[in-house]
Amino acid sequence: MSLVLDPAAQDLLFREARTANAFTDEPVTDEQVQAIYDLVKYGPTAFNQTPLRITLVRSPEARERLVPRLAEGNRAKTANAPLVAILSADNEFHEELPHLFPAAPQIKDVFFTERPVRENAAGLNAALQAAYFIVGVRAAGLAAGPMTGFDFEGVRKEFLDDDHTPLMIVNIGRPGPDAWYPRSPRLEFDQVVTTV
Amino acid sequence: MSLVLDPAAQDLLFREARTANAFTDEPVTDEQVQAIYDLVKYGPTAFNQTPLRITLVRSPEARERLVPRLAEGNRAKTANAPLVAILSADNEFHEELPHLFPAAPQIKDVFFTERPVRENAAGLNAALQAAYFIVGVRAAGLAAGPMTGFDFEGVRKEFLDDDHTPLMIVNIGRPGPDAWYPRSPRLEFDQVVTTV
Repeated sequence: MSLVLDPAAQDLLFREARTANAFTDEPVTDEQVQAIYDLVKYGPTAFNQTPLRITLVRSPEARERLVPRLAEGNRAKTANAPLVAILSADNEFHEELPHLFPAAPQIKDVFFTERPVRENAAGLNAALQAAYFIVGVRAAGLAAGPMTGFDFEGVRKEFLDDDHTPLMIVNIGRPGPDAWYPRSPRLEFDQVVTTV
Repeated sequence: MSLVLDPAAQDLLFREARTANAFTDEPVTDEQVQAIYDLVKYGPTAFNQTPLRITLVRSPEARERLVPRLAEGNRAKTANAPLVAILSADNEFHEELPHLFPAAPQIKDVFFTERPVRENAAGLNAALQAAYFIVGVRAAGLAAGPMTGFDFEGVRKEFLDDDHTPLMIVNIGRPGPDAWYPRSPRLEFDQVVTTV
């Protein structure tokens, strides 16, 4: 065995975990979300920038504003998920860099004075953090249902502001009946990895 | 405890794992890389697209071509890492979608006929997969040293082709002496999460 991670943890996070399209009505608590965040906040990013922002859609009124902005195939499952989170990238993340990367507090003014550069860095690093978040949802024994099928500009206007770029929306809960498709194939090692 | 993941696994993957800047000379084997891939290939992406490609830089000749294309502060550690991996996004990933997403094989021709759309999707989903890969390196008991400080166009020309966009370069091995900075602060839950 080349992995040292416990096989049960491998199953929980990757091998048996699945993207859920249906959920039970068991609530997802703020304590669970806090525990997830307090684990995955340690995931590595460039210069320890942490542009990911999480908007928890809890009120029925907010849910009603969100659902029509999703692709039709994503509406019913999102209307019924115990918790819905909008993940976005904060393009003004550089303001926090002197605090977050004390080893080189000048980084903010060296690399990140221009907005397009920040958007690029925020997009990549918030995506890394989004993946850690999905792993964290699974670490809490919950299923995630990440989606990119929605009106990005509409969600930005309705829930965020010009400094934040939506990344994905994630349904969270315990999987319900018929929660997923059969497992789809993956590319083989030799299709993905080359050696030079 | 809101997490069901074993605390030792939490430590291995997030709490005690660190980005390494120095490594021992213990080799990283192809078997280890295969085990990492065979775990993290299950990480979720949109439509099960798997645009991540991994170029293992194993030969001294290839390492010599890579190191000068890194930012100066990344050169010495990359010259000495047991293994270096170039992670890139395959912008022609859509060709594999009918195989990878049999539930809707028409997706390839509905959403992905235009290259800019594919680059956008490949960038996001390969970034998610890069994060899973970093988690997988840690699951193998190894340390990752991901870097974005390099000449992207130079690395593309030297090691890839026009269909592939470099994403990051990751040093991999067992951490050596003084392998990391002190742990930097993270944003608090309330700085990242809002509820609507």
